[in-house]
Amino acid sequence: MNRPMLALLFLETVHGLNRSSMFLLKSVMSCKTTNWTPLFAWQGAGLAAMQKKDLAKNADLMWRQSVWTSTISAAVAAHYLKDGGVLALTGAKPALQGTPGMIGYGMSKAAVHQLTRSLAGSDSGMPTDSLVVSILPVTLDTPMNRKWMPKADFTTWTTLTEVAELFHKWTKGVERPKSGSLLQLITKDSKTKLVDSE
Amino acid sequence: MNRPMLALLFLETVHGLNRSSMFLLKSVMSCKTTNWTPLFAWQGAGLAAMQKKDLAKNADLMWRQSVWTSTISAAVAAHYLKDGGVLALTGAKPALQGTPGMIGYGMSKAAVHQLTRSLAGSDSGMPTDSLVVSILPVTLDTPMNRKWMPKADFTTWTTLTEVAELFHKWTKGVERPKSGSLLQLITKDSKTKLVDSE
Repeated sequence: MNRPMLALLFLETVHGLNRSSMFLLKSVMSCKTTNWTPLFAWQGAGLAAMQKKDLAKNADLMWRQSVWTSTISAAVAAHYLKDGGVLALTGAKPALQGTPGMIGYGMSKAAVHQLTRSLAGSDSGMPTDSLVVSILPVTLDTPMNRKWMPKADFTTWTTLTEVAELFHKWTKGVERPKSGSLLQLITKDSKTKLVDSE
Repeated sequence: MNRPMLALLFLETVHGLNRSSMFLLKSVMSCKTTNWTPLFAWQGAGLAAMQKKDLAKNADLMWRQSVWTSTISAAVAAHYLKDGGVLALTGAKPALQGTPGMIGYGMSKAAVHQLTRSLAGSDSGMPTDSLVVSILPVTLDTPMNRKWMPKADFTTWTTLTEVAELFHKWTKGVERPKSGSLLQLITKDSKTKLVDSE
């Protein structure tokens, strides 16, 4: 079997739902690469604040959307990713702290962050020299986000091309972050910096 | 309705399963209190390392055992706990870092930690002046743990009486930790120190 070099857990944003993932996928696929056989797992939305009465129900939904997909990606990567390959999961900056307005979402993303650290450990079952990171975007520049937030400052949004280029670099072994990193994508004046959380 | 002052999510340890919870419950109930009407949620085991092939399945089991019970406790507490009451959840010290040998367990406990922080936030829906903490025990001194680890150094184990007394103090408003704290219970020479994680 031709093992893939990149396993991605696709991005969601508050408004974009799976549309963001579609757009990012397009960007990733349009990168000039011939040696990618990406694995994809799809991830649903980061919904807005939970109603207290729906807490348990929503927490479970968030778990299914974020953690199931991440765990499945990890299990697939553990079996099929190439040595030296990349597994990119999607975390959330707010979940680095408490998120009283979106409790289920915060719990699920905290679990993804912890998963990222676990998979980077030496006994995790991931392939030799593989890189596991979570990216923690703030706002992605997608058509849906532009539609819902037409007056936002787009120079602080991260383009999908930038994200795709990061993944591309890492699969090439260029400027790889430390495995287990939770990487905030902080965009200012249309330039994106990677900030390791911790 | 007579609102309870203490909502507990009962403890589990690696070997003790629900037996630990039973013993702790007994200790709590034997505290000389007349004004407790504890709420209880039961929690299953922190199982040992996951088989790679069972990762997804086990992660889901861990979620049900740790996070469902914690979330249900939180939802019940949000509705029924007295103002100034205490919600004590159970975290895990190892989950403060990556846990490559027990991935599902680590994710679930990281979620409980994040839940604790969320519930301590001002908009979480918890009653006024309530205290939300997670306790992070290392090893609890239970009959089951003694049976399975007969040669361990028991002077480093935390007795259930100590844990019960902490809860008792906090419901009385005595030496309350900051809400949202993740409190490691570090026992040495049979004395237990509370260490706030962060």
